[in-house]
Amino acid sequence: MGVDPGLTRCGLSMIDMTATRKASFINVGIAGTAAAEPLDERILRIFTVTQTWLDTYQPDALAIERIFAQEQVNTVIGTAHASGAVISAAAVRGIPVFFHTPSEVKAAVTGSGRADKASVGRMVTKILGLEKIPKPADAADALAIAICHGWRGGGIGSGINMSANTQTHQGSRPVRAQHAKLTPAQRIWLEAEAKTRR
Amino acid sequence: MGVDPGLTRCGLSMIDMTATRKASFINVGIAGTAAAEPLDERILRIFTVTQTWLDTYQPDALAIERIFAQEQVNTVIGTAHASGAVISAAAVRGIPVFFHTPSEVKAAVTGSGRADKASVGRMVTKILGLEKIPKPADAADALAIAICHGWRGGGIGSGINMSANTQTHQGSRPVRAQHAKLTPAQRIWLEAEAKTRR
Repeated sequence: MGVDPGLTRCGLSMIDMTATRKASFINVGIAGTAAAEPLDERILRIFTVTQTWLDTYQPDALAIERIFAQEQVNTVIGTAHASGAVISAAAVRGIPVFFHTPSEVKAAVTGSGRADKASVGRMVTKILGLEKIPKPADAADALAIAICHGWRGGGIGSGINMSANTQTHQGSRPVRAQHAKLTPAQRIWLEAEAKTRR
Repeated sequence: MGVDPGLTRCGLSMIDMTATRKASFINVGIAGTAAAEPLDERILRIFTVTQTWLDTYQPDALAIERIFAQEQVNTVIGTAHASGAVISAAAVRGIPVFFHTPSEVKAAVTGSGRADKASVGRMVTKILGLEKIPKPADAADALAIAICHGWRGGGIGSGINMSANTQTHQGSRPVRAQHAKLTPAQRIWLEAEAKTRR
Protein backbone atom coordinates (compact mmCIF):
# COMPACT_ATOMS: atom_id res chain seq x y z
CA MET A 1 0.00 0.00 0.00
CA GLY A 2 1.28 3.44 -0.92
CA VAL A 3 0.24 6.71 0.71
CA ASP A 4 0.86 10.29 -0.36
CA PRO A 5 -0.12 11.97 2.92
CA GLY A 6 -2.12 15.17 3.13
CA LEU A 7 -5.13 16.63 4.93
CA THR A 8 -6.84 18.15 1.89
CA ARG A 9 -6.06 15.26 -0.45
CA CYS A 10 -4.49 12.07 0.90
CA GLY A 11 -3.62 9.65 -1.91
CA LEU A 12 -4.07 5.94 -1.15
CA SER A 13 -3.03 3.12 -3.45
CA MET A 14 -2.80 -0.64 -3.49
CA ILE A 15 -0.64 -2.63 -5.87
CA ASP A 16 0.66 -6.16 -6.14
CA MET A 17 4.36 -6.77 -6.81
CA THR A 18 5.56 -10.12 -8.10
CA ALA A 19 8.96 -11.73 -7.51
CA THR A 20 10.10 -10.51 -10.91
CA ARG A 21 9.22 -6.94 -9.95
CA LYS A 22 6.10 -6.84 -12.11
CA ALA A 23 3.69 -4.35 -10.55
CA SER A 24 -0.04 -4.64 -11.02
CA PHE A 25 -2.77 -2.21 -10.12
CA ILE A 26 -5.35 -3.05 -7.45
CA ASN A 27 -6.90 0.24 -6.36
CA VAL A 28 -6.29 3.96 -5.95
CA GLY A 29 -8.27 6.65 -4.16
CA ILE A 30 -8.25 9.96 -2.36
CA ALA A 31 -9.31 10.69 1.21
CA GLY A 32 -10.25 14.34 1.02
CA THR A 33 -11.22 16.83 3.70
CA ALA A 34 -12.11 20.53 3.52
CA ALA A 35 -9.95 23.18 5.16
CA ALA A 36 -13.10 24.56 6.84
CA GLU A 37 -13.69 21.33 8.79
CA PRO A 38 -12.42 21.05 12.39
CA LEU A 39 -8.88 19.65 12.49
CA ASP A 40 -9.83 16.63 14.61
CA GLU A 41 -12.56 15.64 12.12
CA ARG A 42 -10.10 15.97 9.22
CA ILE A 43 -7.54 13.76 10.97
CA LEU A 44 -10.24 11.27 11.94
CA ARG A 45 -11.37 10.97 8.31
CA ILE A 46 -7.83 10.20 7.13
CA PHE A 47 -7.44 7.69 9.98
CA THR A 48 -10.72 5.85 9.32
CA VAL A 49 -10.30 5.72 5.53
CA THR A 50 -6.80 4.29 6.05
CA GLN A 51 -8.22 1.74 8.50
CA THR A 52 -10.79 0.63 5.91
CA TRP A 53 -8.11 0.18 3.24
CA LEU A 54 -5.84 -1.74 5.63
CA ASP A 55 -8.65 -4.02 6.78
CA THR A 56 -9.91 -4.58 3.23
CA TYR A 57 -6.59 -5.36 1.54
CA GLN A 58 -4.38 -6.40 4.49
CA PRO A 59 -1.21 -5.24 2.75
CA ASP A 60 2.22 -6.73 3.55
CA ALA A 61 3.64 -3.23 4.00
CA LEU A 62 2.67 0.42 3.92
CA ALA A 63 4.98 2.87 2.14
CA ILE A 64 4.57 6.58 2.83
CA GLU A 65 6.35 9.75 1.85
CA ARG A 66 8.98 10.92 4.32
CA ILE A 67 8.13 14.54 5.10
CA PHE A 68 10.79 17.18 4.80
CA ALA A 69 10.56 20.90 5.38
CA GLN A 70 10.66 21.85 1.72
CA GLU A 71 7.09 22.98 1.27
CA GLN A 72 5.28 25.85 2.93
CA VAL A 73 5.49 25.22 6.64
CA ASN A 74 1.72 25.27 7.29
CA THR A 75 1.21 22.66 4.56
CA VAL A 76 3.96 20.57 6.18
CA ILE A 77 2.16 20.65 9.55
CA GLY A 78 -1.09 19.42 7.97
CA THR A 79 0.77 16.74 6.01
CA ALA A 80 2.55 15.56 9.16
CA HIS A 81 -0.77 15.42 11.06
CA ALA A 82 -2.25 13.22 8.31
CA SER A 83 0.91 11.12 8.21
CA GLY A 84 0.73 10.54 11.98
CA ALA A 85 -2.82 9.24 11.58
CA VAL A 86 -1.93 6.93 8.66
CA ILE A 87 1.18 5.54 10.41
CA SER A 88 -0.77 4.96 13.65
CA ALA A 89 -3.45 3.00 11.79
CA ALA A 90 -0.85 0.75 10.11
CA ALA A 91 1.54 0.33 13.04
CA VAL A 92 -1.20 -0.61 15.52
CA ARG A 93 -2.13 -3.45 13.13
CA GLY A 94 1.48 -4.67 13.00
CA ILE A 95 1.83 -3.67 9.35
CA PRO A 96 5.44 -2.54 8.71
CA VAL A 97 5.76 1.08 7.60
CA PHE A 98 8.48 2.25 5.20
CA PHE A 99 9.49 5.79 4.31
CA HIS A 100 10.70 7.10 0.96
CA THR A 101 11.60 10.67 0.06
CA PRO A 102 9.89 12.38 -2.90
CA SER A 103 13.13 12.29 -4.88
CA GLU A 104 13.59 8.55 -4.21
CA VAL A 105 10.05 7.97 -5.48
CA LYS A 106 10.59 10.08 -8.60
CA ALA A 107 13.94 8.42 -9.31
CA ALA A 108 12.43 4.94 -8.89
CA VAL A 109 9.62 5.42 -11.40
CA THR A 110 11.13 7.89 -13.90
CA GLY A 111 14.90 7.51 -13.49
CA SER A 112 15.24 11.13 -12.35
CA GLY A 113 14.88 12.46 -8.83
CA ARG A 114 13.84 15.80 -10.28
CA ALA A 115 11.05 14.57 -12.55
CA ASP A 116 7.89 16.70 -12.68
CA LYS A 117 4.42 15.49 -11.67
CA ALA A 118 3.40 14.89 -15.30
CA SER A 119 6.36 12.52 -15.87
CA VAL A 120 5.56 10.61 -12.69
CA GLY A 121 1.93 10.27 -13.82
CA ARG A 122 2.94 9.03 -17.28
CA MET A 123 5.42 6.46 -15.92
CA VAL A 124 2.96 5.14 -13.30
CA THR A 125 0.39 4.70 -16.09
CA LYS A 126 2.93 2.83 -18.24
CA ILE A 127 4.32 0.64 -15.42
CA LEU A 128 0.85 -0.46 -14.29
CA GLY A 129 -0.59 -0.72 -17.83
CA LEU A 130 -3.42 1.71 -17.04
CA GLU A 131 -5.64 3.18 -19.75
CA LYS A 132 -5.25 6.75 -18.52
CA ILE A 133 -3.18 8.78 -16.07
CA PRO A 134 -4.64 8.61 -12.53
CA LYS A 135 -6.02 11.97 -11.36
CA PRO A 136 -5.49 13.98 -9.25
CA ALA A 137 -1.69 13.98 -8.99
CA ASP A 138 -1.95 12.74 -5.38
CA ALA A 139 -3.45 9.48 -6.69
CA ALA A 140 -0.59 8.99 -9.16
CA ASP A 141 1.91 9.88 -6.42
CA ALA A 142 0.43 7.29 -4.06
CA LEU A 143 0.87 4.63 -6.77
CA ALA A 144 4.43 5.85 -7.43
CA ILE A 145 5.30 5.46 -3.73
CA ALA A 146 3.97 1.89 -3.73
CA ILE A 147 5.94 1.02 -6.90
CA CYS A 148 9.07 2.69 -5.49
CA HIS A 149 8.79 0.63 -2.34
CA GLY A 150 8.31 -2.65 -4.17
CA TRP A 151 11.39 -1.95 -6.27
CA ARG A 152 13.71 -0.28 -3.78
CA GLY A 153 13.39 -2.59 -0.84
CA GLY A 154 11.30 -4.21 1.79
CA GLY A 155 8.79 -5.37 -0.80
CA ILE A 156 8.04 -9.01 -1.57
CA GLY A 157 9.66 -8.70 -4.96
CA SER A 158 12.96 -7.30 -3.72
CA GLY A 159 14.33 -7.67 -0.21
CA ILE A 160 13.08 -11.18 0.48
CA ASN A 161 13.30 -12.48 -3.06
CA MET A 162 14.80 -15.96 -3.01
CA SER A 163 14.31 -16.96 -6.65
CA ALA A 164 17.40 -17.61 -8.75
CA ASN A 165 16.58 -15.34 -11.68
CA THR A 166 16.06 -12.15 -9.75
CA GLN A 167 17.08 -8.88 -11.30
CA THR A 168 19.63 -6.95 -9.32
CA HIS A 169 18.36 -4.00 -7.42
CA GLN A 170 19.71 -1.21 -5.28
CA GLY A 171 18.61 0.22 -1.99
CA SER A 172 16.81 -2.84 -0.68
CA ARG A 173 17.12 -3.95 2.91
CA PRO A 174 19.39 -6.86 3.78
CA VAL A 175 17.70 -10.20 3.09
CA ARG A 176 18.30 -11.41 6.62
CA ALA A 177 16.62 -8.40 8.21
CA GLN A 178 13.55 -9.03 6.07
CA HIS A 179 13.42 -12.73 6.89
CA ALA A 180 13.29 -11.90 10.56
CA LYS A 181 9.77 -10.52 10.24
CA LEU A 182 7.91 -12.16 7.39
CA THR A 183 4.20 -11.53 7.19
CA PRO A 184 1.88 -14.54 6.70
CA ALA A 185 1.40 -13.48 3.06
CA GLN A 186 5.16 -13.33 2.53
CA ARG A 187 5.61 -16.82 3.96
CA ILE A 188 2.88 -18.17 1.67
CA TRP A 189 4.55 -16.44 -1.25
CA LEU A 190 8.00 -17.84 -0.37
CA GLU A 191 6.57 -21.35 -0.09
CA ALA A 192 4.87 -20.99 -3.49
CA GLU A 193 8.15 -19.70 -4.93
CA ALA A 194 10.05 -22.68 -3.53
CA LYS A 195 7.56 -25.12 -5.08
CA THR A 196 7.87 -23.47 -8.48
CA ARG A 197 11.62 -24.01 -8.46
CA ARG A 198 11.41 -27.74 -7.71
CA MET B 1 -7.19 15.30 29.39
CA GLY B 2 -4.39 17.62 28.31
CA VAL B 3 -1.63 16.77 25.86
CA ASP B 4 1.60 18.60 25.08
CA PRO B 5 2.44 16.73 21.87
CA GLY B 6 5.95 15.63 20.92
CA LEU B 7 7.82 12.57 19.68
CA THR B 8 10.71 12.73 22.15
CA ARG B 9 8.58 13.74 25.14
CA CYS B 10 4.80 13.79 24.86
CA GLY B 11 3.21 15.19 28.02
CA LEU B 12 -0.10 13.62 29.10
CA SER B 13 -2.28 14.86 31.93
CA MET B 14 -5.64 14.21 33.49
CA ILE B 15 -7.50 16.64 35.70
CA ASP B 16 -11.00 17.07 37.01
CA MET B 17 -12.73 20.43 36.71
CA THR B 18 -15.76 21.25 38.85
CA ALA B 19 -18.64 23.55 37.98
CA THR B 20 -17.00 26.30 40.02
CA ARG B 21 -13.80 25.99 37.98
CA LYS B 22 -11.91 24.21 40.74
CA ALA B 23 -9.26 22.03 39.09
CA SER B 24 -7.95 18.91 40.76
CA PHE B 25 -5.04 16.72 39.78
CA ILE B 26 -5.61 13.12 38.66
CA ASN B 27 -2.46 12.06 36.81
CA VAL B 28 0.45 13.27 34.70
CA GLY B 29 3.01 11.40 32.64
CA ILE B 30 5.37 11.42 29.70
CA ALA B 31 5.33 9.14 26.65
CA GLY B 32 8.94 9.24 25.54
CA THR B 33 10.68 7.83 22.49
CA ALA B 34 14.30 7.98 21.33
CA ALA B 35 15.29 9.78 18.15
CA ALA B 36 17.19 6.64 17.08
CA GLU B 37 14.00 4.53 16.97
CA PRO B 38 12.19 4.04 13.65
CA LEU B 39 9.59 6.76 13.09
CA ASP B 40 6.67 4.32 12.86
CA GLU B 41 7.59 2.77 16.22
CA ARG B 42 7.84 6.22 17.82
CA ILE B 43 4.41 7.22 16.50
CA LEU B 44 2.94 3.86 17.54
CA ARG B 45 4.20 4.35 21.10
CA ILE B 46 2.54 7.78 21.38
CA PHE B 47 -0.66 6.31 19.88
CA THR B 48 -0.82 3.31 22.23
CA VAL B 49 0.06 5.27 25.39
CA THR B 50 -2.68 7.77 24.49
CA GLN B 51 -5.12 4.88 23.92
CA THR B 52 -4.32 3.50 27.37
CA TRP B 53 -4.93 6.88 29.03
CA LEU B 54 -8.19 7.38 27.12
CA ASP B 55 -9.46 3.91 27.97
CA THR B 56 -8.41 4.20 31.61
CA TYR B 57 -9.85 7.63 32.35
CA GLN B 58 -12.47 8.06 29.62
CA PRO B 59 -12.15 11.85 29.65
CA ASP B 60 -15.00 14.14 28.52
CA ALA B 61 -12.60 16.03 26.26
CA LEU B 62 -9.02 16.06 25.06
CA ALA B 63 -7.21 19.40 24.84
CA ILE B 64 -4.01 19.61 22.80
CA GLU B 65 -1.62 22.33 21.75
CA ARG B 66 -2.34 23.82 18.35
CA ILE B 67 0.91 23.59 16.40
CA PHE B 68 2.31 26.66 14.73
CA ALA B 69 5.46 27.07 12.74
CA GLN B 70 7.38 28.94 15.41
CA GLU B 71 9.86 26.26 16.39
CA GLN B 72 12.54 24.65 14.28
CA VAL B 73 10.78 23.10 11.33
CA ASN B 74 12.05 19.55 11.91
CA THR B 75 10.79 19.66 15.49
CA VAL B 76 7.44 20.89 14.17
CA ILE B 77 7.17 17.88 11.83
CA GLY B 78 7.80 15.42 14.67
CA THR B 79 5.36 17.27 16.92
CA ALA B 80 2.69 17.22 14.21
CA HIS B 81 3.25 13.47 13.66
CA ALA B 82 2.73 12.84 17.38
CA SER B 83 -0.28 15.16 17.40
CA GLY B 84 -1.86 13.25 14.49
CA ALA B 85 -1.53 10.01 16.47
CA VAL B 86 -3.01 11.51 19.67
CA ILE B 87 -5.92 13.17 17.83
CA SER B 88 -6.69 9.95 15.90
CA ALA B 89 -6.82 7.93 19.14
CA ALA B 90 -9.26 10.40 20.73
CA ALA B 91 -11.41 11.14 17.68
CA VAL B 92 -11.95 7.48 16.80
CA ARG B 93 -13.37 7.02 20.34
CA GLY B 94 -15.76 9.94 19.86
CA ILE B 95 -13.91 12.06 22.44
CA PRO B 96 -14.09 15.74 21.41
CA VAL B 97 -10.71 17.33 20.71
CA PHE B 98 -10.01 21.00 21.43
CA PHE B 99 -7.02 23.09 20.40
CA HIS B 100 -5.33 25.89 22.30
CA THR B 101 -2.27 27.88 21.27
CA PRO B 102 0.75 28.05 23.60
CA SER B 103 0.04 31.72 24.33
CA GLU B 104 -3.60 30.96 25.20
CA VAL B 105 -2.39 28.29 27.62
CA LYS B 106 0.20 30.58 29.22
CA ALA B 107 -2.32 33.42 29.50
CA ALA B 108 -4.91 31.12 31.09
CA VAL B 109 -2.68 29.85 33.88
CA THR B 110 -0.33 32.81 34.50
CA GLY B 111 -2.23 35.81 33.15
CA SER B 112 0.47 36.48 30.55
CA GLY B 113 0.71 34.96 27.07
CA ARG B 114 4.47 35.46 27.23
CA ALA B 115 5.12 33.70 30.53
CA ASP B 116 8.23 31.49 30.71
CA LYS B 117 8.19 27.77 31.45
CA ALA B 118 9.12 28.29 35.09
CA SER B 119 6.12 30.57 35.68
CA VAL B 120 3.78 28.06 34.02
CA GLY B 121 5.20 25.30 36.23
CA ARG B 122 4.78 27.36 39.40
CA MET B 123 1.19 28.36 38.57
CA VAL B 124 0.17 24.78 37.64
CA THR B 125 1.58 23.63 40.99
CA LYS B 126 -0.37 26.32 42.84
CA ILE B 127 -3.65 25.82 40.94
CA LEU B 128 -3.65 22.07 41.51
CA GLY B 129 -2.27 22.25 45.06
CA LEU B 130 0.69 20.00 44.24
CA GLU B 131 3.63 19.55 46.58
CA LYS B 132 6.24 20.22 43.92
CA ILE B 133 6.51 21.44 40.35
CA PRO B 134 5.84 18.61 37.83
CA LYS B 135 8.97 17.69 35.85
CA PRO B 136 9.91 17.71 33.00
CA ALA B 137 8.38 20.92 31.63
CA ASP B 138 6.31 18.84 29.16
CA ALA B 139 4.40 17.36 32.12
CA ALA B 140 3.64 20.80 33.57
CA ASP B 141 2.66 22.01 30.08
CA ALA B 142 0.23 19.10 29.63
CA LEU B 143 -1.44 20.04 32.93
CA ALA B 144 -1.52 23.70 31.89
CA ILE B 145 -3.31 22.79 28.64
CA ALA B 146 -5.93 20.81 30.56
CA ILE B 147 -6.48 23.67 33.02
CA CYS B 148 -6.63 26.20 30.18
CA HIS B 149 -9.27 24.12 28.42
CA GLY B 150 -11.41 23.73 31.51
CA TRP B 151 -11.35 27.48 32.07
CA ARG B 152 -11.50 28.81 28.54
CA GLY B 153 -14.30 26.75 27.16
CA GLY B 154 -15.67 23.42 26.17
CA GLY B 155 -15.01 21.98 29.63
CA ILE B 156 -17.69 20.84 32.03
CA GLY B 157 -16.99 23.76 34.35
CA SER B 158 -17.35 26.45 31.74
CA GLY B 159 -19.21 26.09 28.45
CA ILE B 160 -22.04 23.90 29.62
CA ASN B 161 -22.30 25.23 33.14
CA MET B 162 -25.96 25.72 34.02
CA SER B 163 -25.67 26.56 37.70
CA ALA B 164 -26.85 29.97 38.83
CA ASN B 165 -23.73 31.02 40.70
CA THR B 166 -21.26 30.53 37.89
CA GLN B 167 -18.31 32.84 37.62
CA THR B 168 -18.11 34.70 34.36
CA HIS B 169 -15.54 33.45 31.92
CA GLN B 170 -14.14 34.44 28.59
CA GLY B 171 -13.40 32.46 25.50
CA SER B 172 -15.80 29.60 26.12
CA ARG B 173 -17.92 28.13 23.39
CA PRO B 174 -21.59 29.12 23.20
CA VAL B 175 -23.68 27.09 25.62
CA ARG B 176 -26.00 25.93 22.87
CA ALA B 177 -23.21 24.47 20.77
CA GLN B 178 -21.99 22.48 23.75
CA HIS B 179 -25.43 21.16 24.58
CA ALA B 180 -25.70 19.70 21.12
CA LYS B 181 -23.08 17.06 21.94
CA LEU B 182 -23.01 16.24 25.62
CA THR B 183 -21.03 13.21 26.67
CA PRO B 184 -22.65 10.71 29.04
CA ALA B 185 -20.49 12.08 31.89
CA GLN B 186 -21.61 15.61 31.09
CA ARG B 187 -25.27 14.57 31.17
CA ILE B 188 -24.77 12.87 34.54
CA TRP B 189 -23.05 15.97 35.83
CA LEU B 190 -25.83 18.26 34.59
CA GLU B 191 -28.45 16.06 36.23
CA ALA B 192 -26.51 16.14 39.50
CA GLU B 193 -26.23 19.92 39.19
CA ALA B 194 -29.95 20.26 38.60
CA LYS B 195 -30.74 18.16 41.70
CA THR B 196 -28.44 20.30 43.83
CA ARG B 197 -30.34 23.40 42.85
CA ARG B 198 -33.75 22.03 43.81
